[in-house]
Amino acid sequence: MSDQYFMKRALYLARKGAGYVSPNPMVGAVIEKDGKIIAEGYHRRYGEAHAEANALAGLKQVPPGAKLYVTLEPCSHHGKTPPCLERVLAAKFSHVIIGMEDPNPLVSGKSIAALRRAGVEVTVGVMEGDCRALNESFLKYVTTGMPFITVKFAQTLDGRIATSTGHSQWISGERSRRFAHKLRSLHDAILAGAGTVLHDDPELTTRHVKGRNPLRVILDPKLEAPLTAKIFQNQDRAATLIVTGIRSFPDKCSQIRGLGVDVLQMDQEEDHLFDLQELFLRLGQRKISSVLVEGGSGVITSVLRADCADRVVAIVAPKIIGAGLDTVGELHITSMERAMGLRFKKVSRSGDDIILDGRITKPLS
Amino acid sequence: MSDQYFMKRALYLARKGAGYVSPNPMVGAVIEKDGKIIAEGYHRRYGEAHAEANALAGLKQVPPGAKLYVTLEPCSHHGKTPPCLERVLAAKFSHVIIGMEDPNPLVSGKSIAALRRAGVEVTVGVMEGDCRALNESFLKYVTTGMPFITVKFAQTLDGRIATSTGHSQWISGERSRRFAHKLRSLHDAILAGAGTVLHDDPELTTRHVKGRNPLRVILDPKLEAPLTAKIFQNQDRAATLIVTGIRSFPDKCSQIRGLGVDVLQMDQEEDHLFDLQELFLRLGQRKISSVLVEGGSGVITSVLRADCADRVVAIVAPKIIGAGLDTVGELHITSMERAMGLRFKKVSRSGDDIILDGRITKPLS
Repeated sequence: MSDQYFMKRALYLARKGAGYVSPNPMVGAVIEKDGKIIAEGYHRRYGEAHAEANALAGLKQVPPGAKLYVTLEPCSHHGKTPPCLERVLAAKFSHVIIGMEDPNPLVSGKSIAALRRAGVEVTVGVMEGDCRALNESFLKYVTTGMPFITVKFAQTLDGRIATSTGHSQWISGERSRRFAHKLRSLHDAILAGAGTVLHDDPELTTRHVKGRNPLRVILDPKLEAPLTAKIFQNQDRAATLIVTGIRSFPDKCSQIRGLGVDVLQMDQEEDHLFDLQELFLRLGQRKISSVLVEGGSGVITSVLRADCADRVVAIVAPKIIGAGLDTVGELHITSMERAMGLRFKKVSRSGDDIILDGRITKPLS
Repeated sequence: MSDQYFMKRALYLARKGAGYVSPNPMVGAVIEKDGKIIAEGYHRRYGEAHAEANALAGLKQVPPGAKLYVTLEPCSHHGKTPPCLERVLAAKFSHVIIGMEDPNPLVSGKSIAALRRAGVEVTVGVMEGDCRALNESFLKYVTTGMPFITVKFAQTLDGRIATSTGHSQWISGERSRRFAHKLRSLHDAILAGAGTVLHDDPELTTRHVKGRNPLRVILDPKLEAPLTAKIFQNQDRAATLIVTGIRSFPDKCSQIRGLGVDVLQMDQEEDHLFDLQELFLRLGQRKISSVLVEGGSGVITSVLRADCADRVVAIVAPKIIGAGLDTVGELHITSMERAMGLRFKKVSRSGDDIILDGRITKPLS
């Protein structure tokens, strides 16, 4: 059995934490002895034990000659739990195989050095590409303080998210709608505009699949969302953050806060637009490590124009409607070479629809 | 070895005729004896021998007990070559396995009945779905007289075929451009608008791949294409048909005809539009069994609005440009339920692009 074999298993385990561990990374760990997995674990939930601790919990004692496979360098600092480094050192593994170094520049490589100083053989970088891809949100967040931004939309083949009269239900099929809810459950926050609230009155919660509810962030520069909107309900299950201007009606702000809803007042630029870089930074300060931008067209366009997007997930329905509401509005691009560039990382069928899952590789500016 | 095995081989052979046999169908034939293929053939080129004849040509004599596998019912009528039925009867096969009946309602089933009358065991419908898909253009053409219409475009992920200033080179990658030329070579005609000629001055020939040049059909209601345009060149290699109004300048019509270019004068509706159903019927009368609609946006929209399209091939580039030239214009659809519906038959990667190859399953009207 190769290192890859055990690291793949650790990656598989790590993914089970998807949607539950952020803003921590997903981590999986496998303990191997003589080619057999004798214990394994993963980080299950934010605030709970780390992968290494969970794997070690499965053994009364680590036998001599055992190896540890872990997707991410063990932590060396005291956080919500004691540092994994101490436990790993105490376990006296003969060999520790690590998928990738800790991306946090303050601690990166420290545990690796400590293990080596203690005489443990350490291999770093086994399946590193997969380990990095697993935690792409975390990697961006921990190195920049900005959440990883995914723009998601369901459009017709000809790039429309609604007819000219605003009719949009349903563009995509049932399976894609479940996929969209799954995507919600994997993000710390959803971003939508007040127009979407006024027009569709969505709940913006995770319903068709099991999973947590992300924070519902609503851009509402003119404070138009009615107090009866669904986004103001169930605050115990799914929190809402209204982003509005500094000079927005204080009375309505108070009323909204009275519903248990958070209100963030920010400077507005012309046309009532917010500085989205600033907004995302502020969300990052609130431990929001990933944001799913759900629309509508205005919000999607603003996020793209501000060059904030990292990932674009397009659900393409097998439909053509011609002139209607465009998915993406004005980006002021006049030459094809200046187009925003993506790499289609994954292309898959979803019922009758196609999902194109891309990463931004060439920004606008 | 199953019937499917030999029919698959016959299908494989048939596909080799793609781009050379229309308006005939592609046909493949395999002769099997005791589980072994002892001869095979396919229809190579319009006007030349049919698949059955080519397979039989490989044998001095057909041994007793041999079976014939053929993707399409052998023809029973005298055309450019003698009817295959006579040869198949003469070969005294013990068993003839046929993919699908002749779709021509005038002769459908006649050869099958004749073979059975002669005591030959006949099986019909082995891999019928694949055999029908192989000749979808032919099936439509032979049953309706209308060519099979494919709308092809290369667009950004957000549904634009050019920037707002008309800049479009290049949306798609090199591999997709080769694919587009391959698609040309598989069609009897290309349809483009005078705007495309004026703006891009394309050759509209098959260049990046081996293959024949389809007829270049240009919708030019106001007779705007300049006599220097590339579509007027190389008439010996690739013919051009200009479609214009009945009252278009007779002098210019004569000049164009003087270049060896065909001019079709048709009634015009308001806005200088032609009755596209009528146009396609006329092309069918000229033995055009398939048309590739290449654009621009106006022609694509007209063909879709006239509900003439059978297939849509979208090359989706990993780019976003926002507001620009839309692939599809006004179709007067206000409710999502009224959207034109497709089935994505094939989804594939083409370099960095994605090709979505769909069939229209729900028309507009």
